[in-house]
Amino acid sequence: PDLIRDHRERLACDYVVISDTGKHDAATPALAYATRGLVYKQITIEGPARDLHSGQYGGAVANPANVLAGLIASFHDADRRVTIPGFYDGVPELTPEERRLLAGQDLSDAELIAATGCPWPFGEAGFNTRERCTARPTLDVNGIWGGYTGDGSSTIIPAKAHAKVSMRLVGRQDPEKVSAAFDAYVRAWCPPAVRVSVQTYGTCAAYLAPTDSPGLRAAAKALAAGYGKEPVLTREGGTLPILPLFKQVLGADSLMLGFAHPDCNAHSPNEFFHLADFETGTRCILRFLAAMCE
Amino acid sequence: PDLIRDHRERLACDYVVISDTGKHDAATPALAYATRGLVYKQITIEGPARDLHSGQYGGAVANPANVLAGLIASFHDADRRVTIPGFYDGVPELTPEERRLLAGQDLSDAELIAATGCPWPFGEAGFNTRERCTARPTLDVNGIWGGYTGDGSSTIIPAKAHAKVSMRLVGRQDPEKVSAAFDAYVRAWCPPAVRVSVQTYGTCAAYLAPTDSPGLRAAAKALAAGYGKEPVLTREGGTLPILPLFKQVLGADSLMLGFAHPDCNAHSPNEFFHLADFETGTRCILRFLAAMCE
Repeated sequence: PDLIRDHRERLACDYVVISDTGKHDAATPALAYATRGLVYKQITIEGPARDLHSGQYGGAVANPANVLAGLIASFHDADRRVTIPGFYDGVPELTPEERRLLAGQDLSDAELIAATGCPWPFGEAGFNTRERCTARPTLDVNGIWGGYTGDGSSTIIPAKAHAKVSMRLVGRQDPEKVSAAFDAYVRAWCPPAVRVSVQTYGTCAAYLAPTDSPGLRAAAKALAAGYGKEPVLTREGGTLPILPLFKQVLGADSLMLGFAHPDCNAHSPNEFFHLADFETGTRCILRFLAAMCE
Repeated sequence: PDLIRDHRERLACDYVVISDTGKHDAATPALAYATRGLVYKQITIEGPARDLHSGQYGGAVANPANVLAGLIASFHDADRRVTIPGFYDGVPELTPEERRLLAGQDLSDAELIAATGCPWPFGEAGFNTRERCTARPTLDVNGIWGGYTGDGSSTIIPAKAHAKVSMRLVGRQDPEKVSAAFDAYVRAWCPPAVRVSVQTYGTCAAYLAPTDSPGLRAAAKALAAGYGKEPVLTREGGTLPILPLFKQVLGADSLMLGFAHPDCNAHSPNEFFHLADFETGTRCILRFLAAMCE
């Protein structure tokens, strides 16, 4: 952020082009016009000063792992909406037009199951899969640990338990407000029989680009020429913290010309990028730059 | 178990003496007359076939760590009673005499806090600390893990999450029935959006010795002579799986002549046993054996 602020004049531009997103499917290019924001937390719950013998003290002290589980369970209601007060402030209602657009890109249950290996879809009531993973805010545990995790059994009450928890934000959700509301909720929820602390590993707003800019139209043309197929306008479920920063500091909107395969195992073992997309993508960007120079 | 069964004739005896319990406090010996049973489980919840990018799929799939937290939270109600159907079958009402006995041995809140480092007591409504950790059944998480547990942040939805969960049993709770009820509860609770499996690492019944046997009276005399102080009759919160087995196969009750310091960090780093208790304890056992030979 400091680098961009310090060099804002040298960096002055009409648009930012960033290639960190994906195609709509193997054959169809995509132009993403939105990314979700992010608030990333680590919760630590501490109980006894050391691991206790669960026979000696089990039943008479708060178990940090049980308390952590209760806290995490409380983050969602039965409709899989997030329960933190104020969490939905700034989340826009989706317009009928956008719901139609996203419905056209929805994954069927079978497609979601094939893509993820999950036994069945799951998520916030009242929204389809595409809306859930791009246009709605979420809360997920990214990691959890505490106590004995080796083979077999050890009968302890763990001294501590930890979880990494991140929230994806949309629209005008204010990441600083969500961050503070999360911390306040966690502190208020935990019983006095444990100590709780929360670390923040990052906060970032969502980003929404105009879908009618000359730059976007030129990018769409370049993609259509490169892939022989009109690009699909998409929402990206992930987060690109630099996009709201570019907008804020440079006043420039970003154009997401991304070429990853949707099933590229992003953030997982064996992530890949096809050489053909590297070549076609490079050509698309050159076409776009040439068009913008006309 | 097979060794004891195979040699039941050579092992025939009036009593079994076992030294695996503790003193009442630094200066006061104890004779435990009860141990709790144990059922130990490992739960695995599987969702996606691999860790997923939480931006790409967050909100549209069941997160195994969130589901595991919800499951664990559901094991207790607001009064900290275990919710598994049939769990309390065979749990005896404590008699007024036994409640008086246990009340006389109760730890004050300050003592529990000093002994464990916990910020505050916690447990089943309607019972004091001593009852909670010796005479009431419990359910505790012994370990929990899943997803990214390193430094900083990683925005994944974990493919799997795991927990080790153990239950302490009392009275006539049937460990096999509790084990089956636990498995059935877990399978019924989990949504079809995840796969769940449960492993059993051990089942053991509670053990209760008669408090008016000649052996127990002789043991009490030996302890009183060794420590210069009458022993306290106590319930042990932990589990000694061999005691119900001795009773079942040999028909012999066990006498728990244990000499550990109550704050010996059992099952934790820096567990210790005082040399003075090793000497005095040995003398107590010799006195007991001599008395039984008279």
